Amino acid sequence: MAGNSFGNLFKITTFGESHGKAIGVIIDGCPPNISIDEDFIQSELDKRKPGQSKITTQRKESDVAQILSGVFEGKSTGTPIAILIPNEDQRSKDYSHIADKYRPSHADYTYQQKYGIRDYRGGGRSSARETAARVAAGAIAKLYLKSQGIEIFAHVSAVGTLEAPNLDTTNLSALLDIREANIARCADPATANEMIALIDSIRKAGDTIGGKISTVVRGVPVGLGEPVFDKLHADLGKAMLSINAVHGFEYGSGFSGSEMRGSEHNDIFVKAEEQVRTRTNFSGGIQGGISNGMDIMFRTAFKPVATIMRDQETLNEAGDSTTISGKGRHDPCVVSRAVIIVEAMTALVLADHLLRFKAYKD
Amino acid sequence: MAGNSFGNLFKITTFGESHGKAIGVIIDGCPPNISIDEDFIQSELDKRKPGQSKITTQRKESDVAQILSGVFEGKSTGTPIAILIPNEDQRSKDYSHIADKYRPSHADYTYQQKYGIRDYRGGGRSSARETAARVAAGAIAKLYLKSQGIEIFAHVSAVGTLEAPNLDTTNLSALLDIREANIARCADPATANEMIALIDSIRKAGDTIGGKISTVVRGVPVGLGEPVFDKLHADLGKAMLSINAVHGFEYGSGFSGSEMRGSEHNDIFVKAEEQVRTRTNFSGGIQGGISNGMDIMFRTAFKPVATIMRDQETLNEAGDSTTISGKGRHDPCVVSRAVIIVEAMTALVLADHLLRFKAYKD
Amino acid sequence: MAGNSFGNLFKITTFGESHGKAIGVIIDGCPPNISIDEDFIQSELDKRKPGQSKITTQRKESDVAQILSGVFEGKSTGTPIAILIPNEDQRSKDYSHIADKYRPSHADYTYQQKYGIRDYRGGGRSSARETAARVAAGAIAKLYLKSQGIEIFAHVSAVGTLEAPNLDTTNLSALLDIREANIARCADPATANEMIALIDSIRKAGDTIGGKISTVVRGVPVGLGEPVFDKLHADLGKAMLSINAVHGFEYGSGFSGSEMRGSEHNDIFVKAEEQVRTRTNFSGGIQGGISNGMDIMFRTAFKPVATIMRDQETLNEAGDSTTISGKGRHDPCVVSRAVIIVEAMTALVLADHLLRFKAYKD
Amino acid sequence: MAGNSFGNLFKITTFGESHGKAIGVIIDGCPPNISIDEDFIQSELDKRKPGQSKITTQRKESDVAQILSGVFEGKSTGTPIAILIPNEDQRSKDYSHIADKYRPSHADYTYQQKYGIRDYRGGGRSSARETAARVAAGAIAKLYLKSQGIEIFAHVSAVGTLEAPNLDTTNLSALLDIREANIARCADPATANEMIALIDSIRKAGDTIGGKISTVVRGVPVGLGEPVFDKLHADLGKAMLSINAVHGFEYGSGFSGSEMRGSEHNDIFVKAEEQVRTRTNFSGGIQGGISNGMDIMFRTAFKPVATIMRDQETLNEAGDSTTISGKGRHDPCVVSRAVIIVEAMTALVLADHLLRFKAYKD
Repeated sequence: MAGNSFGNLFKITTFGESHGKAIGVIIDGCPPNISIDEDFIQSELDKRKPGQSKITTQRKESDVAQILSGVFEGKSTGTPIAILIPNEDQRSKDYSHIADKYRPSHADYTYQQKYGIRDYRGGGRSSARETAARVAAGAIAKLYLKSQGIEIFAHVSAVGTLEAPNLDTTNLSALLDIREANIARCADPATANEMIALIDSIRKAGDTIGGKISTVVRGVPVGLGEPVFDKLHADLGKAMLSINAVHGFEYGSGFSGSEMRGSEHNDIFVKAEEQVRTRTNFSGGIQGGISNGMDIMFRTAFKPVATIMRDQETLNEAGDSTTISGKGRHDPCVVSRAVIIVEAMTALVLADHLLRFKAYKD
Repeated sequence: MAGNSFGNLFKITTFGESHGKAIGVIIDGCPPNISIDEDFIQSELDKRKPGQSKITTQRKESDVAQILSGVFEGKSTGTPIAILIPNEDQRSKDYSHIADKYRPSHADYTYQQKYGIRDYRGGGRSSARETAARVAAGAIAKLYLKSQGIEIFAHVSAVGTLEAPNLDTTNLSALLDIREANIARCADPATANEMIALIDSIRKAGDTIGGKISTVVRGVPVGLGEPVFDKLHADLGKAMLSINAVHGFEYGSGFSGSEMRGSEHNDIFVKAEEQVRTRTNFSGGIQGGISNGMDIMFRTAFKPVATIMRDQETLNEAGDSTTISGKGRHDPCVVSRAVIIVEAMTALVLADHLLRFKAYKD
Repeated sequence: MAGNSFGNLFKITTFGESHGKAIGVIIDGCPPNISIDEDFIQSELDKRKPGQSKITTQRKESDVAQILSGVFEGKSTGTPIAILIPNEDQRSKDYSHIADKYRPSHADYTYQQKYGIRDYRGGGRSSARETAARVAAGAIAKLYLKSQGIEIFAHVSAVGTLEAPNLDTTNLSALLDIREANIARCADPATANEMIALIDSIRKAGDTIGGKISTVVRGVPVGLGEPVFDKLHADLGKAMLSINAVHGFEYGSGFSGSEMRGSEHNDIFVKAEEQVRTRTNFSGGIQGGISNGMDIMFRTAFKPVATIMRDQETLNEAGDSTTISGKGRHDPCVVSRAVIIVEAMTALVLADHLLRFKAYKD
Repeated sequence: MAGNSFGNLFKITTFGESHGKAIGVIIDGCPPNISIDEDFIQSELDKRKPGQSKITTQRKESDVAQILSGVFEGKSTGTPIAILIPNEDQRSKDYSHIADKYRPSHADYTYQQKYGIRDYRGGGRSSARETAARVAAGAIAKLYLKSQGIEIFAHVSAVGTLEAPNLDTTNLSALLDIREANIARCADPATANEMIALIDSIRKAGDTIGGKISTVVRGVPVGLGEPVFDKLHADLGKAMLSINAVHGFEYGSGFSGSEMRGSEHNDIFVKAEEQVRTRTNFSGGIQGGISNGMDIMFRTAFKPVATIMRDQETLNEAGDSTTISGKGRHDPCVVSRAVIIVEAMTALVLADHLLRFKAYKD
């Protein structure tokens, strides 16, 4: 109940601190006989790892995943898959200056009050480094979903007020190629260039900026999600909000849907190629909490990174005023790395609900 | 795992269909010796019940709660509290015209595909009538939280594009009085009047409209919420997204925070009246997923009600095109009734996390 | 987490006190489209109800089950099935003499210390009356299992030191007929007569006596049960030990198996009628925590009922010595009524594991 | 839901196969600020490890535990504690002769049928090697319980039909010293010598034998355990039954209690040294599922180890008859090593229920 597990049938439990020996994850409930492609897992981790471009933190971690269990002769066995990611670049002394100070808008103060003790090095457990474990687990979930015909695509749709235009999402794998061709991970090349320039200027100013990530899931059968509390979008929302720095979630029409009339918002059922479809998709592929076979679409808002390269006022543990100076290696904007975390958490939710769905199907 | 339970230590399980014999809830994990004020529970239900004003559905349900267990001589005993709310106004024949048709943007199609069977009367289990059970359970949670000094306030902050100005939230009980003095349940009287006029015009047009609800929670001790997956705001988000018609959730700075710079977004720690506070509250009272003692603040977006009093194109179960006519009794705008549901779900999340917090405190 | 739920995918939550308004249960996770035979549910309750014979308590409760939700036109809909059993014979004044006394080997003392409050009437929540709710839920589980070819049979195999001989279990439904033809619910008629005489003499002496129940489950597919903590027999054991008065559980060779050598205990695999079987069944149908297709066999030990018709020394709430007199209406031996509770809990475990099994099967 | 987690608030998740890279465990929910004595964890593992005496398997594993997270400057931080135990002695070729044969009374057949794939080396996940991870986690739980005044003692009370006399349990730490002074781990020295001789003769005969372990828990506050399904003894029973080779569990009077009369079985409340006690303890320290402050007492029965050094008939994966020869390194009797596993699982149940208890206490 201490909250380090996620999912029910496809369940993960993560561990590890930013500057401890290792981080890692146990995946319990991956179906047997799934081909576990270690290169794929590593390529996913590489998309999240620090130091990958000039617009990310320069901390260097190779983030090499080691599978310790649950895979035999290249296939999942149905037993828990443990993945270990050793920490390498532990410049703990970088953090001695904040050992007894509360960094603004970080978790230092709340951890200290909650536990009476904290590993202050790099934020300890509160560091977004924990999300590498999620990405590794998400890669396993993606391999399972792929075997079931489900694909997931996310990209950076906004940095600050700079928003990408709506994409033609007909070909998700083509969009993925476009996204991976630029360091902003926006699938609109022109906007990507603007984003990179903006983030770079923010970085030079010693500041940070927020952004948004948009996600599309395709190939989900009709029927995933439970109607009351475990609505599919409620579990997706929780998954997104559990990612560091996320402050908002909306699906389908989202916040703008609250400004619409029912007569314009209702998605009319039509038949297309012998399939039941809806003419519009303000429902974001989910009705009554249950997938309806249309693309699942949602958006996630990230606040600006709290660590800035400027002096800030704050309090220390004794309660006295003090100044904290901007030091260390941090991201000016987190969304280009977070794209893969969003996809991972999405995959985990879908894998879990797919298994729940199968339990009741004959 | 079929998703009709919510919470861990303060856990509820709801049951019941719109036009069945009754709906109800079991609350498992209410601490013992809490005074259970039945009048308060009823007054909460009265705020949600249909037919309470001209801007709500005219369906008549008295929604009288019966406590069946778990209370002895006016106090909780630590055993499960079961609450029953009989259904009264079951005009099931109103629904015969939709028995085999899929209402647009309702759950008819997804239920039928998921289960192969559905109680089509009034949407069956997918009806928002289920939320009456949540309100009853939320009332119990509020009684517990009140005994711990925690208060919750929500109001309608927007109907369509009509937004209330930011409120001075110094005195929540005064705001509550203002809110309850108007049928829109907006704590700004001038905006409330505009909202009522807008909803009434929408109703007359046979249409519906969406809106937003803003919530403040005060008196939460520092330390509630678990740092990784069960972040306090992630559980609040899931709770909100589990409410019928909710399409978005944001806390603190929310979506607009994603447009800000770190240097303007960071909440500086200061000492005020011997307490650690933050100068601003873009964090919405939650840092690293854990309450920091400031007011918890979030906002929830509701789509327009799907049932409109107009003819709509759709498909029937056979897959043929058909027309569905606007009949029955429905809400032109759901937010004024949903305020109390938002408060109830908020109370349930807080009560659960308060118990989890206490488990680890000496 | 207050422990009133059981199961994961086929999950029940019970509520109610012995002398409150009603007891009941919510079944969440029953698959849709199962025919819900209300007569069958009632006939199961009738086998547990008090007052059914001279060797049971004379308390009169008709224990009529009312289905409030989750069933539409005779079939389960996949939504929660709520069942209510009103309490009728609430002679609460029978209990005023024990309001502040701790009955020996009852839960009065532990409840009072745990909660600081208790409904002392008839033991409140600690009463075995709660098991009627389990029997109703177990009836639903049995209907589901029957549709999957799984049958469950339990009978009284011992009262005190009086043990029934080993049964030929080839024909379980014939054994069921024999069992139901006598009030002891032992499937060996000669032993049944001796049991009835023994219990009757115990009753006349104002005393009580313990006993044992043996269970066989047939038709379980190979593969139910999870290998580590949720072993099938571990969940069966927990289910049995959760029944009031149960003090022991063993499966397969059980306690006597601990006195055997490996060379005599090992179950040799053989082929019979193109099926993999074992020559002996010391494994009780479960190997490595997973069903192997053989009959599942286990035994449950019940202590003597704590309420005796004799004066006993005890303490009151003030901590002073006092005497408690034997009054009220109670069972001299609980096992003949408990047979149906054992079957119900067995059905709930099997239904849950069958759904878990299906989640991972393609 | 794949069953590799145990506990709710003090929760563990284990991973690893007998001949994979490593086994390990994540402990989620250990309270913060507990001193984590690594030497103690190692000493516990040493009591379970193979090769420790002539009456255990000669497989050599040093079983060195590495703490990867959750501990900072010697104290628990409230975040997940991950412990890794690398596998060293992986003589996988020892197992090539059983790659396609089902060993009698092992989990080979059920795993293969359940998953369609298995790591056959040393039983893979079904190996009792997994219990080393439980012992490491149990050591953490013991450290927590010790800080709360709770102590746990188990010993071998029977090997085959050779039973130790009832012990005077006044001084548990003295009994622990006696137990650790002999390789049978029986706290009665004379019986211990007989057990050692018996096991040695069994070993020489290429056979195996079962046994029983008795456990006492002292210092448990009144009030642990939830009254209905999560009764304290039900969770202890599940914990014991989840240990490899356990076929039976009884607490307090156990199976023999089912042969007693209520008038002899009832535990009379008395006052002793200003404490409420019971004159006898047939209740085993638990009444109504809740601890009553007396010693908690239970007994666990282990079947004989399935691997014997003799040729046995069996089937192979193709379904053909074949012979399996007795090879490899195995225990003639598992109970002397299992004592520490029983204590570990007991500690995990108690730690979990202690936290659940605290959640509801003011």
